[in-house]
Amino acid sequence: MKTIRTQTLVAAALLAAVAFTTTITCAADPLPSWNDGPAKKAIVDFVAKVTKPGSPHFVPVAERIATFDNDGCLWAEQPMYFQAFFVFDRVKALAPRHPEWKEKEPFASVLKGDVKSALAGGEHALMEMVMATHAGMTTEEFAQIVKDWLATAKHPVTKRPFTEMVYQPMLELLAYLRANGFKTFIVSGGGIEFMRPWTEKVYGIPPEQVIGSSIKTKFELRDGKPVLVRLPELSFNDDKDGKPVGINQHIGRRPIAAFGNSDGDLQMLQWTAAGPGPRFCLYVHHTDADREWAYDRESHIGRLDKGLDEAKEKG
Amino acid sequence: MKTIRTQTLVAAALLAAVAFTTTITCAADPLPSWNDGPAKKAIVDFVAKVTKPGSPHFVPVAERIATFDNDGCLWAEQPMYFQAFFVFDRVKALAPRHPEWKEKEPFASVLKGDVKSALAGGEHALMEMVMATHAGMTTEEFAQIVKDWLATAKHPVTKRPFTEMVYQPMLELLAYLRANGFKTFIVSGGGIEFMRPWTEKVYGIPPEQVIGSSIKTKFELRDGKPVLVRLPELSFNDDKDGKPVGINQHIGRRPIAAFGNSDGDLQMLQWTAAGPGPRFCLYVHHTDADREWAYDRESHIGRLDKGLDEAKEKG
Repeated sequence: MKTIRTQTLVAAALLAAVAFTTTITCAADPLPSWNDGPAKKAIVDFVAKVTKPGSPHFVPVAERIATFDNDGCLWAEQPMYFQAFFVFDRVKALAPRHPEWKEKEPFASVLKGDVKSALAGGEHALMEMVMATHAGMTTEEFAQIVKDWLATAKHPVTKRPFTEMVYQPMLELLAYLRANGFKTFIVSGGGIEFMRPWTEKVYGIPPEQVIGSSIKTKFELRDGKPVLVRLPELSFNDDKDGKPVGINQHIGRRPIAAFGNSDGDLQMLQWTAAGPGPRFCLYVHHTDADREWAYDRESHIGRLDKGLDEAKEKG
Repeated sequence: MKTIRTQTLVAAALLAAVAFTTTITCAADPLPSWNDGPAKKAIVDFVAKVTKPGSPHFVPVAERIATFDNDGCLWAEQPMYFQAFFVFDRVKALAPRHPEWKEKEPFASVLKGDVKSALAGGEHALMEMVMATHAGMTTEEFAQIVKDWLATAKHPVTKRPFTEMVYQPMLELLAYLRANGFKTFIVSGGGIEFMRPWTEKVYGIPPEQVIGSSIKTKFELRDGKPVLVRLPELSFNDDKDGKPVGINQHIGRRPIAAFGNSDGDLQMLQWTAAGPGPRFCLYVHHTDADREWAYDRESHIGRLDKGLDEAKEKG
């Protein structure tokens, strides 16, 4: 299991004003934003090994499955998960329809702009807000709400659209793997229907290759037209132990490469590493406080603690 | 919504000894086993329309999603669902470990070879046997059990392996659609992990494009090795209303073509037909009692009743 440090992994948006210090050793370098260190070498060596016909490590195209966490791996996750910004904006947008929220926590704190108090109720409070904002509409209406939000919402620090807060080196990695016959999947604790409206455009990953947490939906005929209505009930939590379960449910085949950045990805990496033949697991380790954010063991989100120990232990 | 009759849709296995009567009008006919009737013409016209660049009906490759029911659509389903034969054989194989089954229904009837009495308890009895035979092992162990069974089990009427009880015209249709940029998915009420071990070899459909009913799984470390253990608890029933839900969960995009054969597929066909732009829905109608089985409104399985009415009504 490799770790790479975010000196090489900065948000594309942040790169714009920063001197480009990576040494480009070859005009055809498929990973130009990566430092020429052991992580890059390990990736290139792995891809060469599994794609070389006749090699004892050769893996047929159909089995070249690579899975990626999203928050903190493909796009940033500081100062909080981007979907949480969406939740808060939706609470504000829906507030006129819910006069009772003015007096009711955690909604009241959100409406006062007090995010810290709103989140004081922990996961329970967050789930209450997710259910109040993510359910009650059809799947198509929800996709449109997500698209409309992304078209105008801005990251509070960089003032960039959230879909520009993606890591250039990881975009290169996705493209490099696909050019070598890999099928790339997202396996995220984030909402599956929160990601699907934009992952194809931003990452080149189509909706059927996005795995995430979900709420239940119900098939209904409305005026004779079939719709799927989103219900305020959790269907699947795609985090930690849930990631191998989600991978099995959606893909039905064990990945040969997996990429994460937090303890929430540990089981996915263990599941991937435990298969036969060549396997590649990588932890993105955020260490660049100047161009991005530096965080690991003590972070309130995207905590990397057990995973860092296991990565060090197993190399 | 089109229906086709199984005069053109006979099990490949059954074709072997039968004179091949289809008129082949063109050397490059991509659907040689299909009669040159309106169903074939409708399919070819539809594919031409959605794949022609510049056409007002053009559909980009990424959106060319086609979904197929399995039982009675891609492979046969008479005299009963093939997975039921698997369940009964597993009950017999596991009986030595369960001496109590000799006295306990529905197991006792299965062990006496009395299928009718075993199924007298309806869905509840069948689910009890499914849970007793499909859970308790890891996902990898279960896949191996399915493969081992398919290697020796034979259809009671044709004495052929079940994986040869597939419809040649449908194999041609799958290949034809894929050659035209379609991604082909199975959407079946059958068990997702019962199908995945063989769908790639038999239909060219990889595991990640198989949607089916499922039981829950649990991630565990066994002697330090991660496994997914199958639990005796239903996770998802991919039938009727469940089919659009499963399609949305796995694909996240509405199919533009869907193929079924029973009322269990009606909602999938409705969901598909209700999207914008060109859509193609087809019911396989089993009418050839000589070479296959003829059944529809009164059948105990694969009943086609409401669907037949709606197909006639909507053309």
